[in-house]
Amino acid sequence: MVPHLITALTGPINELEQRVLDSMPAIERWFRLEWMEHTPPFYSSVDIRNAGFKLSPVDTNLYPSGWNNLTPEMLPLAVQAAMAAIEKICPEARNLLVIPENGKHSSFYLANLAQLQHIFNMAGLNVRLGSIDPAVKKTTTVELHNGDHVTLEPVIRGKRRLGLKDFDPCTILLNNDLSAGVPGILEEIYEQYLMPPLHAGWPTRRKSIHFKCYEEVAKRLGKLMGVDPWLINPLFDKCEDVNLGQDQGMDCLNSQVDAVLTRVRRKYKEYGIKEKPFVVVKADHGTHELGIVTVRDAKDMQALCDRVQTLTKGRKSPVLPHDFLVQEGVLTQERVNDAVAEPVIYTMDRYVVGGFYRVHAGRGVDENLNAPGSDYVPLAFEHSAQLPQPGVKPGASVPNRFYMYGVVGRLAMLAASYELEATDPEAESYD
Amino acid sequence: MVPHLITALTGPINELEQRVLDSMPAIERWFRLEWMEHTPPFYSSVDIRNAGFKLSPVDTNLYPSGWNNLTPEMLPLAVQAAMAAIEKICPEARNLLVIPENGKHSSFYLANLAQLQHIFNMAGLNVRLGSIDPAVKKTTTVELHNGDHVTLEPVIRGKRRLGLKDFDPCTILLNNDLSAGVPGILEEIYEQYLMPPLHAGWPTRRKSIHFKCYEEVAKRLGKLMGVDPWLINPLFDKCEDVNLGQDQGMDCLNSQVDAVLTRVRRKYKEYGIKEKPFVVVKADHGTHELGIVTVRDAKDMQALCDRVQTLTKGRKSPVLPHDFLVQEGVLTQERVNDAVAEPVIYTMDRYVVGGFYRVHAGRGVDENLNAPGSDYVPLAFEHSAQLPQPGVKPGASVPNRFYMYGVVGRLAMLAASYELEATDPEAESYD
Repeated sequence: MVPHLITALTGPINELEQRVLDSMPAIERWFRLEWMEHTPPFYSSVDIRNAGFKLSPVDTNLYPSGWNNLTPEMLPLAVQAAMAAIEKICPEARNLLVIPENGKHSSFYLANLAQLQHIFNMAGLNVRLGSIDPAVKKTTTVELHNGDHVTLEPVIRGKRRLGLKDFDPCTILLNNDLSAGVPGILEEIYEQYLMPPLHAGWPTRRKSIHFKCYEEVAKRLGKLMGVDPWLINPLFDKCEDVNLGQDQGMDCLNSQVDAVLTRVRRKYKEYGIKEKPFVVVKADHGTHELGIVTVRDAKDMQALCDRVQTLTKGRKSPVLPHDFLVQEGVLTQERVNDAVAEPVIYTMDRYVVGGFYRVHAGRGVDENLNAPGSDYVPLAFEHSAQLPQPGVKPGASVPNRFYMYGVVGRLAMLAASYELEATDPEAESYD
Repeated sequence: MVPHLITALTGPINELEQRVLDSMPAIERWFRLEWMEHTPPFYSSVDIRNAGFKLSPVDTNLYPSGWNNLTPEMLPLAVQAAMAAIEKICPEARNLLVIPENGKHSSFYLANLAQLQHIFNMAGLNVRLGSIDPAVKKTTTVELHNGDHVTLEPVIRGKRRLGLKDFDPCTILLNNDLSAGVPGILEEIYEQYLMPPLHAGWPTRRKSIHFKCYEEVAKRLGKLMGVDPWLINPLFDKCEDVNLGQDQGMDCLNSQVDAVLTRVRRKYKEYGIKEKPFVVVKADHGTHELGIVTVRDAKDMQALCDRVQTLTKGRKSPVLPHDFLVQEGVLTQERVNDAVAEPVIYTMDRYVVGGFYRVHAGRGVDENLNAPGSDYVPLAFEHSAQLPQPGVKPGASVPNRFYMYGVVGRLAMLAASYELEATDPEAESYD
């Protein structure tokens, strides 16, 4: 299955694909050397957009769900990568505690938990699911559509360790992005491995730091392949401390939107791209009531102002100042049965272990697809994202396209590695 | 595809399968801890025999060919494992030289070389094939049935390095078991990584050392799973310095055959096995003119003596004294379309990356299947040998059977690791 790609045979994306393929051994060696110096995130999923003329990550998730969307063929790869990850971090590990998101779980998310449990069990660990949601007070077992069972238990916090009844894990895997803040129950755990580290959660993460790191590695990979890094890197700028209730706040946002749009316009002109440039305004960390806003022109900016007004007017609690990211919007030109699609790449340790298409019939080419919707369909890649087919005409080979996605996915994962080093609260002690 | 297994639903093999499955996380953890202390062989293939009542490796190849028999679905696993292996041994590597067997190559062996080249190329290396066969004087390119090309070049030996014209590899992979002895061209290479090390070749290797090491690890795994290690371990004994031209030589062989048969008979009695026990006599290192001889009783022993007589009588060069291994014969009860079949497991680094059945319609259940024959058919496993299906009735699940084969395959690989440590000529310097 390869989604119909409008610009498949003409756009610069094919040149990029050719460069990626020609540079394959050099790219793999470069990653290998990078991983000698930097620790890969334990696991990640990277949303990618293929505009036909450029290819960019738009979101790097360090607590990925959706593992259930990988095909059975991809599972051995995930298990092998999990083995490699565990071997490096905690080879003696016997028990693994997985901590899911808080709140009520959809059947999809429960299937994701079952899959994670399955993967780490086959990698040689006893795996149990422990909720840190204060609302979970007793053990509950849910049966899934496929007959699998998921058992969720309330965690028990000891003085120094976290566990379950009759289950003392040496390793804890978070599948919870800590959007609501780091709960006390996860703090001061010194005797157990906690993966990913707490500073990979949204209380610490900033999209602007991630994309700054991404820009750095994209420049280096671009140089290695001999391509303009813009072809794989979305431009961005940041507005700090925007107080939406005050005019100055909106002024900053306004001028940054303008600045990024101008830079994008210049690039479009350079490449003779006829599409209308746009930017995406989103919270620099976690989410914001404002949501993710697409801005193409003055009209959209007015709509954004109106939305802010509605948000701020007549409410009791003030809207707190917040940092925003103004990022070059990347169109998605991929379609599955006329529905807009974007690839999502899954990694574990340093390896691409699978991927699928997020397909959303109800959304536009310049909109966020990671949204609820009755027509959101994950569509697993038919081929591995790891094995290219050298010698095939650019744009004509599914494995080659997937390989390119895997390279960009790993580049975002490498950026996340740099990011976690830069934000590591323990790092100072080594200075 | 699961070959018809005569004893599938009744034999003790199902109990073993159940134990293996029940112990899965413990087994994986045990391997993980072993690999902290011991270096896995770079790659290997392990021939396994399933007698319905026991399961044993019968041959562990440290220069495996037949990589072409793996399915496309298994390739991503092999590439990922190759990445892991290279990362550990030589992360900076850019160029890899693969040294094939000497002599004329069959189209199967050429396809094996093409596959190896493919795997390591995708793992991020420039790969070329360099022959150490003195007969190879110029570069030759052969086209394979599938359209692939294989180019074989003569190696060039410098004072300290081995390479090809315009190709200086930092890493050299042997796919040549050095049966004819270690050629001078491979000696005193100190600046390049040579994998596997020279002492993994037949000039140094002894089957008796391998199976001694295997016995040791089989005992430990048996204890961990709570099963009699005999169920996964073939009994054996060794005859040293057998001079086939003299009576004493044959006497030793005779009494060892008798001793091993007696031990096997005792075990068969203990388990109520009605099959006729047999032993296999083979050269302790490499191959011998005598071949691999199956001995069931006095009649076979007489045939062996006759064969020795024919070998020794009236020849100009004397038959040199040689060490022989007398090993418990393990029946194969697996069939594919009525032809005798035995599974072969492929590993790279510490991972099982695939497997297939060696199928030979012209051979018996107690004969060596690794022999030329028009009806030798490799049949790739349909499932991964890595992912078991917990909860399925023993003998009823293909993935569970393959997982058990993968465990025994890795056990033989671990034995090879112990063996290579024991025979390492450099090891003394660390004492």
